[in-house]
Amino acid sequence: MSGDTSPFALDLAELHGSLGDPLMEVMNFLNEVTSRHPGAISFGPGRPHEGQFEVERIGAYLDAYTRYLTEEAGHTPDEVRTLLFQYGRTNGQIHELVARTLRNDEDIRADPESVVVTVGCQEGMFITLRALFAEPTDVLLVPSPCYIGITGAARLLDIETVPVPEGEDGVDPVALRETVAALRAAGKRPRALYAIPDFANPTGTRMSVPARRRLLEFADEADLLLLEDNPYSFFTRADARVPTLKALDTRRRVVYLGSFAKTCFPGARVGYVVADQEVRLPGGERTLLADQLSKVKSMVTVNTSALSQAAIGGMLLTHGCRLREVNKAAADHYGQNLSVLLDSFERLLPPSRREAAGISWNVPEGGFFLTLTLPVPADNELLETSARDHGVIWTPMTYFYPDGGGLHQMRLSLSYLTPGEVAEGAERLTELLQRSCL
Amino acid sequence: MSGDTSPFALDLAELHGSLGDPLMEVMNFLNEVTSRHPGAISFGPGRPHEGQFEVERIGAYLDAYTRYLTEEAGHTPDEVRTLLFQYGRTNGQIHELVARTLRNDEDIRADPESVVVTVGCQEGMFITLRALFAEPTDVLLVPSPCYIGITGAARLLDIETVPVPEGEDGVDPVALRETVAALRAAGKRPRALYAIPDFANPTGTRMSVPARRRLLEFADEADLLLLEDNPYSFFTRADARVPTLKALDTRRRVVYLGSFAKTCFPGARVGYVVADQEVRLPGGERTLLADQLSKVKSMVTVNTSALSQAAIGGMLLTHGCRLREVNKAAADHYGQNLSVLLDSFERLLPPSRREAAGISWNVPEGGFFLTLTLPVPADNELLETSARDHGVIWTPMTYFYPDGGGLHQMRLSLSYLTPGEVAEGAERLTELLQRSCL
Repeated sequence: MSGDTSPFALDLAELHGSLGDPLMEVMNFLNEVTSRHPGAISFGPGRPHEGQFEVERIGAYLDAYTRYLTEEAGHTPDEVRTLLFQYGRTNGQIHELVARTLRNDEDIRADPESVVVTVGCQEGMFITLRALFAEPTDVLLVPSPCYIGITGAARLLDIETVPVPEGEDGVDPVALRETVAALRAAGKRPRALYAIPDFANPTGTRMSVPARRRLLEFADEADLLLLEDNPYSFFTRADARVPTLKALDTRRRVVYLGSFAKTCFPGARVGYVVADQEVRLPGGERTLLADQLSKVKSMVTVNTSALSQAAIGGMLLTHGCRLREVNKAAADHYGQNLSVLLDSFERLLPPSRREAAGISWNVPEGGFFLTLTLPVPADNELLETSARDHGVIWTPMTYFYPDGGGLHQMRLSLSYLTPGEVAEGAERLTELLQRSCL
Repeated sequence: MSGDTSPFALDLAELHGSLGDPLMEVMNFLNEVTSRHPGAISFGPGRPHEGQFEVERIGAYLDAYTRYLTEEAGHTPDEVRTLLFQYGRTNGQIHELVARTLRNDEDIRADPESVVVTVGCQEGMFITLRALFAEPTDVLLVPSPCYIGITGAARLLDIETVPVPEGEDGVDPVALRETVAALRAAGKRPRALYAIPDFANPTGTRMSVPARRRLLEFADEADLLLLEDNPYSFFTRADARVPTLKALDTRRRVVYLGSFAKTCFPGARVGYVVADQEVRLPGGERTLLADQLSKVKSMVTVNTSALSQAAIGGMLLTHGCRLREVNKAAADHYGQNLSVLLDSFERLLPPSRREAAGISWNVPEGGFFLTLTLPVPADNELLETSARDHGVIWTPMTYFYPDGGGLHQMRLSLSYLTPGEVAEGAERLTELLQRSCL
């Protein structure tokens, strides 16, 4: 050795371009503000409520799954040991339980072979993008504003994303049609559209059934796939169910991205993809898109943690493969928070007062998020003032706009607070507005 | 809707190029042969022995970790619940325990902040490649033959891999120097070399200490990073320890890829990366490469399963953050298998007999793998004959050559068999050789 022990260093500029992209940094400022103001009420995180979590239950879930493997699936003790400890099937071992649950809760009929169990929904999005996007001319359409998990995954894979404005009924159908036409005219291939039809992150909007049907029709007409991400559909205030895109999908245009992060718990990191599309092989044979995703997954994470699958599998079994009912308490919690926030705003900012000032908000029927619109920029500077002087934190909506926009909006997340904190947070937000724009 | 309910279909040719790459298919034939001949003795899988796995221990490991969180780390019960159930730190929660274990077992001094806990070593390889490879001209050097987990990950990211022949002391230093020079002359940037210095997969070779030092020196001279993958170093026949590249690395040229799949158990899917390289930011500040990997990981899997981390963390704590000792029984098992195989071959194929026929094998000091060289092609056809007529399965070495080669070699994996099966397998292999080339 040369004896030189000074470490060499890398330059950020020579690492992958995604690492210097502001997109990958957007949450840092929020986290940093939060850590500097630990006493502030935070409408920031989209984390689920922890009221239903009990450490003691983990063992019970694992036991329930082990019993199922032995008694229902007929495995010997040695086979059970192998299933829990060894490398496993790339697409997972709880795919049948997931398919049963989807049928019970969402009326989605999925062949278990089309279900890929993933390391959270994030890995599901990532491997789906990797499999579907082949050429530099392939484009992913995203709503604007958009969840950054999908735009971030696309950025890692150097996939071009093109925003389509979202209205109160999902992506604007006229803008979508125009964008697709313009991309094709430019020699590009719009490959898929990402959507959260139920209580979108960040806006909280939900698509109507006619809008869903129109979107499916357009996907067929334009040869688009729809990547439906559905973490929030259980969490409605009124119990007004709307069918998912996948449940309405007769031609397999929808790749369904599922998550147990909000309906079971995030720490397991278990999600799934329903990829029932047929793929024609050169010899004429056909496989499922799920089989192709398996090849990708084998080179990203090999397979999903058997322990995590056992915990989620046990939880599904414990509740008869029906999660909607057991999530009623969580749904009520989120619904109460939403009602408290809307009632507080209505009281603190009655129409006369807010309309004159140019303040408004949407009224989501469920989910974790609400959008508040101001007459002044809801930027990092206002966030800093808000946290420091008023003890309340929120997310600037600009963070979610791939191409700019949302400058006067904030995302308010309700999921991680108590109703009391929501009420107090609404007071503090009103004080902030008082100072800045009332 | 149009009423047309016939499913549309995708073409493999329009999916990402990796999916049509033979590399992604190589293990399929092996798996398929194995499933058609369930009674065959298989020298195929590189799975760890299951002798030490006990389902009952999972609960004990989780308890040990929970106790540690409360008693040693000082967390409240609510915080413990959050750590186990909620989203968590992207780079993991057992990074300090991993750092302690590395120090105890491998004399690697790693700042816990430089440790990224990953979904198995595979995710570690994947996110490291993604962060380090920026331009189409960036090239990954790989030994030939090479573990397909790294070439597969590179393929998913469209990263060019260039093979460098491996000799009995790791990659050939002359060929490495020439390859780097040729790539630079062609306007490319050799960015990193992947290596398994201890009992490589697939060959079983181990690099000597002088070869390690030479490689580190060359990495410095040629501005290369070394991606050191170390799943097997505990599993030596004689207890002759050799320092890892990372332990010898004074200038932070080595990104260390760690796995608990063989030293704890694969089902947890927990691995890690030690990425202690400094990264200069445009403003002059410095971060660790680990901080950059965190951004990538957040868009691939968000964080590693808390349950899996708890199980592995509990296992580390149970054994005082020393895994080498507790793996002695497994090491003995693998060592015994290796000795049985070598002794059987020596007896069945004495020098006079094998030399005349052109049969040879290497004599690894440890690990899971051995290379058997034949005078005839060890191809899929011979494998089929071997499985059907002789009841023994192995892996054609060609599977591991990125650019062709290894046609007359087979990889024999010893890890998943009993000594009795190894002895019987050696007999069956000799029968196959008898028929085909003796």
